Amino acid sequence: MFKSWHGKRAVDYRNAANISHDLGTAVNVQTMVFGNMGDDCATGVTMSRNASTGEAELEGDFLVNAQGEDVVAGIRTTQPIGALANVMPDMHGELVAASRKLEAHYRNMQDMEFTVERGKLWILQTRDGKRTAQAEVRIAVDMASEGLISREQAVRRVQPEQVDFFLHPQLDPVAQREAEPLAAGLNVSPGAAVGVAAFDADTAERWSREGREVVMVRPETKPDDVHGMLVAQGIVTLKGGRTSHAALVARQFGKPAVIGAEDLSLDMEERELRAGDLVIREGDWLSIDGTHGNVYPGHLKTIVPDLKNPYLLKILEWAHEFRRLEVRTNADYPKDAQRARDYGAAGIGLCRTEHMFFDTSRLPIVQRMILAKTASERKEAIAELLPIQREDFAGLFRAMSGLPVVIRLLDPPLHEFLPAYDELIRDLADLKVQLQHHTTMDEIDRTLDRIRGMQDFLERVEALRESNPMLGTRGVRLGILIPELTRMQVRAIFEAACTVAREGLEVLPEVMIPLTHHVRELEVQQVALEEEAQDVMSEQGIELRYRFGTMIEIPRAALTADELAERAEFFSFGTNDLTQTTCGISRDDAESGFLMHYLRNGILPRNPFTTIDEKGVGRLIEIAIERGRSVRPDVELGICGEHGGDPESIALCHRLGIDYVSCSPFRVPIARLAAAHAALDEASEARSAEEVH
Amino acid sequence: MFKSWHGKRAVDYRNAANISHDLGTAVNVQTMVFGNMGDDCATGVTMSRNASTGEAELEGDFLVNAQGEDVVAGIRTTQPIGALANVMPDMHGELVAASRKLEAHYRNMQDMEFTVERGKLWILQTRDGKRTAQAEVRIAVDMASEGLISREQAVRRVQPEQVDFFLHPQLDPVAQREAEPLAAGLNVSPGAAVGVAAFDADTAERWSREGREVVMVRPETKPDDVHGMLVAQGIVTLKGGRTSHAALVARQFGKPAVIGAEDLSLDMEERELRAGDLVIREGDWLSIDGTHGNVYPGHLKTIVPDLKNPYLLKILEWAHEFRRLEVRTNADYPKDAQRARDYGAAGIGLCRTEHMFFDTSRLPIVQRMILAKTASERKEAIAELLPIQREDFAGLFRAMSGLPVVIRLLDPPLHEFLPAYDELIRDLADLKVQLQHHTTMDEIDRTLDRIRGMQDFLERVEALRESNPMLGTRGVRLGILIPELTRMQVRAIFEAACTVAREGLEVLPEVMIPLTHHVRELEVQQVALEEEAQDVMSEQGIELRYRFGTMIEIPRAALTADELAERAEFFSFGTNDLTQTTCGISRDDAESGFLMHYLRNGILPRNPFTTIDEKGVGRLIEIAIERGRSVRPDVELGICGEHGGDPESIALCHRLGIDYVSCSPFRVPIARLAAAHAALDEASEARSAEEVH
Repeated sequence: MFKSWHGKRAVDYRNAANISHDLGTAVNVQTMVFGNMGDDCATGVTMSRNASTGEAELEGDFLVNAQGEDVVAGIRTTQPIGALANVMPDMHGELVAASRKLEAHYRNMQDMEFTVERGKLWILQTRDGKRTAQAEVRIAVDMASEGLISREQAVRRVQPEQVDFFLHPQLDPVAQREAEPLAAGLNVSPGAAVGVAAFDADTAERWSREGREVVMVRPETKPDDVHGMLVAQGIVTLKGGRTSHAALVARQFGKPAVIGAEDLSLDMEERELRAGDLVIREGDWLSIDGTHGNVYPGHLKTIVPDLKNPYLLKILEWAHEFRRLEVRTNADYPKDAQRARDYGAAGIGLCRTEHMFFDTSRLPIVQRMILAKTASERKEAIAELLPIQREDFAGLFRAMSGLPVVIRLLDPPLHEFLPAYDELIRDLADLKVQLQHHTTMDEIDRTLDRIRGMQDFLERVEALRESNPMLGTRGVRLGILIPELTRMQVRAIFEAACTVAREGLEVLPEVMIPLTHHVRELEVQQVALEEEAQDVMSEQGIELRYRFGTMIEIPRAALTADELAERAEFFSFGTNDLTQTTCGISRDDAESGFLMHYLRNGILPRNPFTTIDEKGVGRLIEIAIERGRSVRPDVELGICGEHGGDPESIALCHRLGIDYVSCSPFRVPIARLAAAHAALDEASEARSAEEVH
Repeated sequence: MFKSWHGKRAVDYRNAANISHDLGTAVNVQTMVFGNMGDDCATGVTMSRNASTGEAELEGDFLVNAQGEDVVAGIRTTQPIGALANVMPDMHGELVAASRKLEAHYRNMQDMEFTVERGKLWILQTRDGKRTAQAEVRIAVDMASEGLISREQAVRRVQPEQVDFFLHPQLDPVAQREAEPLAAGLNVSPGAAVGVAAFDADTAERWSREGREVVMVRPETKPDDVHGMLVAQGIVTLKGGRTSHAALVARQFGKPAVIGAEDLSLDMEERELRAGDLVIREGDWLSIDGTHGNVYPGHLKTIVPDLKNPYLLKILEWAHEFRRLEVRTNADYPKDAQRARDYGAAGIGLCRTEHMFFDTSRLPIVQRMILAKTASERKEAIAELLPIQREDFAGLFRAMSGLPVVIRLLDPPLHEFLPAYDELIRDLADLKVQLQHHTTMDEIDRTLDRIRGMQDFLERVEALRESNPMLGTRGVRLGILIPELTRMQVRAIFEAACTVAREGLEVLPEVMIPLTHHVRELEVQQVALEEEAQDVMSEQGIELRYRFGTMIEIPRAALTADELAERAEFFSFGTNDLTQTTCGISRDDAESGFLMHYLRNGILPRNPFTTIDEKGVGRLIEIAIERGRSVRPDVELGICGEHGGDPESIALCHRLGIDYVSCSPFRVPIARLAAAHAALDEASEARSAEEVH
């Protein structure tokens, strides 16, 4: 037992579960009781509540005349715990009573091992039970309603990442209806998974590293298989029950799983999975429905479910009472805004207007604007964009009536809207080779024309090229170089706002200037844009409440936030870019370059693009807040970017006194819960500090 | 007079000379005296000392029976002031006496206008005289020796940028001996200039903006011509004397100039400059020798003189006594190190080892290392580099015996050592087109071979490409990915150090790890490298004093300098890169992109790559110093990068309490003087604060 602590599988498991390696394991020496002394004996494992759904009923397996190992190993087919009521009704009654007593004591759902030795029930072990996110949420709400725990405890018990489960993809019901299942098994861990079949953990790990999505299929799983399970999208086993190793691990790490699909057979020699005549070769696609316990051949469509679980809504409602931090959303289209609002977003924290530009019907106009050779050509193209943008913004304002909408002015470098330089060079070379094969003057002329056109294009692209575009002509810099473009955007915003206000809705536009690094940029750009806003409002005869502000995504902006606050009414920390410049790591290259090496080899403890680097980026944010508030005490403070949906980063934002985080619609519920946790942690720290005092 | 303040030329001039526009001009109303009432009358302009060389003798021009305007305008040919001793000996004597009196009063060299009216000398005006840098230095030293001013005042009077003059190129004497001058004129402003002839200020300005070097040639100059003079490399006029407008302006702005080259004629219709039969068309090359007053046709070679002016050496000697900041140099080769040492450098602050890699004989080895397909191939190439690097370092240590030598480990991204991706793609396309024209199998095979080779190359280059190389795999990141490379460099450094130490010289190596952003990088890299250093020293049986340290060139490094100081014994602020990341501006693109627009349009007051941005970068340096010292009070602090030679940045470094700046060898004397100014400014501020107190 003691040695097992240092085994590879134990180490892998602890790494994945973030359990410290120096805790050690405890061993309890006790008298044996025997469940295999005849038919008045039994042994089993049971949860005090359903570990998949959270329902308040025993869930487990037992075997008559057997020992504990027989149940857990999945060798003999067990009976569901409910059947105990028929086989040994007294024992079942005692077990239910014991389970209630233990729950009342531990104030948590219990995972118990028991043995019946000649008609006497022995509880061998109890511990808090592992459960799905769905069960966690329901149990927390139920226990709070039963008075076992407080609402605060209920909220704290649900981990933000567990909310993610409710947003997990499920198989598309239409696709599922048409598909023929390969096999059925136990639905131990819900959600859908699609990937290529891998028949052992090493293969799963290797393929996953190559970027392939994998479904791991095993006869049964052992701790040696954990590294494969962790990288797989989902898990299928041929044997085992609800309390088998595979079920427990899948549930804990939120992996959709189908366990005990007994109709399947696995030929490890031929590397084939068979279901009757059907053969799935290793590497073929599989789709699994962990919610209902079905395995399908091929690549089925998945959908993301609506967030309507009543228990989750209750937890989020309670969370809302505890949190101080608001949660807004990053949304560029009305439908995303609507979804986020359904999920409880308190407004839009970031609308990236450039995403609207990439639409295929608009891109030609955007390109015409960029490639314009005269000022009037450019103006024409910009004028064409105005009504389109106005419609975009009107949609957002309608979806977010009564809530603030932060719209960021054009941010990316212009070359992003043009074809890639390398591709143009390659296409040009191809055309030149083609030219050699032409035989008629007509063909030659046509190709020459195309070559000339492409060369012209290439020159413009070349003129816009930069060695380090992330540090180049973007954001406010672009706005200063092409002021008519950002003026158009502001006009579109305010025309849309007036239109929607006239419809009787409340509109709260916040115009955000990106990539500011010097107050002079605001003096030049913001002043001109506020003028434009005023012009529109007097044309339309409507006065709106609005704000102008800036992103803080360059260290210098943070360091001179007092100067920026003279102009800006709000700051939004663009933590992606701020991390990039503060740490000197290119976001574009981070996922393939040295950063991955750093993370794999433990040189950096965590990815700063996932969780805000507190000592570097966090310190800069702190400086910016302090300086910004020194000039404008009520300056509105927000975070946009990937970090806005990361619980650890959210806790940091709470501690820093930020007003809101903004994240993608699907992260909104997670962020809301994380915000509540941050507030509750702070309160309980304050309480313990007081007690010490 | 009052209106003249707002004229375009006055505005241009003030912009160039950094004179505030709201000062206004004063007008003095006084009784006239007349120098044109007969041959006992005269008028003239004289300096109390020679304005070109600083010699302590009157220098000026006069005209008998004339008014002041006649002298200044350069219309009548004046007589040198020395001739006044023959024409009017009494008047000359009185003038010398007046000049001494005025100098004693103003404690500065005087520029005086005088008129003799019927045998009586009137001094009409006196002011501090404009002079060349050479004259400034000599006059300061002479006046200090004469007791007119203190040494401190002498040092403060010489502006750091004036030292630059002594490093100005001069025409190569060999080239000059063989060349036939086009014409001769007055040597009013020393130094050599080479450029294409431009015959008016607008042309000069336009061509200069296009990146051409220009010598402006004018019949004479007026204030309207100033914008052309400022952008020209040098100036030639056909008329005018030592006190003409052209001479004054050229001198003040350090432009080499030949004035009054009367043998030339300028045909503005044909845009031709003629000297006898010789014709120089506008746009042809001209070379001028302002030190001796000669104009040459064509593009003559220039050389940079040795810094041996005894007056300058004296000023620098005095400066050295006042300064607190040390001045080191950025040098990659022994000859640069030697030159810097001659100029007074106190060591090497930055040796960029990658410059050694670009040498044509080494580049193939470096490329082999980068493109190596196996670990052993790579090791072989690295082993070949070891003896070469050892020799490089030995040379530096010999040149800097007794002084510290900071060697930065490999910094740039590896792709910089390979051909550019775009070029490879183009070459490949060309080869494919060529292929179509081949007729023999032999030709085809050969080209196919080349195509294959190039495709292979291209793949490797592609693998190394990054979207934002400045934020990519560089510096310590590279060292962590290819530890054998930096280990080789450290081995080379310490083997060289031991060799040179064995020669009886004192060696003080400081090994610098670039681009650190997290203390873990030092933990991984520095620890391994210190081991290597120890290994070499025990192999060689020599114990050296040495230091390991890091560059601070990423904001996060500055913000976590306390952690870094646990390992690093010195910090060197790489202000180029630190500016890049702090301001979010790509150095590679800065000179062509939005930054130029910002500077031209006054959106930014100054270029942060020229002068350290105090509020952003300066603040980060301050934080780093404070945190670094909190952990290691004696952490050595330096600045390397272009800012190390900029007087204003040097003053900031002094105020921040940095130990040394490091700059290019030619900037060393300038930096030494700037360091003294910073110390003197601080002392005088402290004195005035005390007086107020």
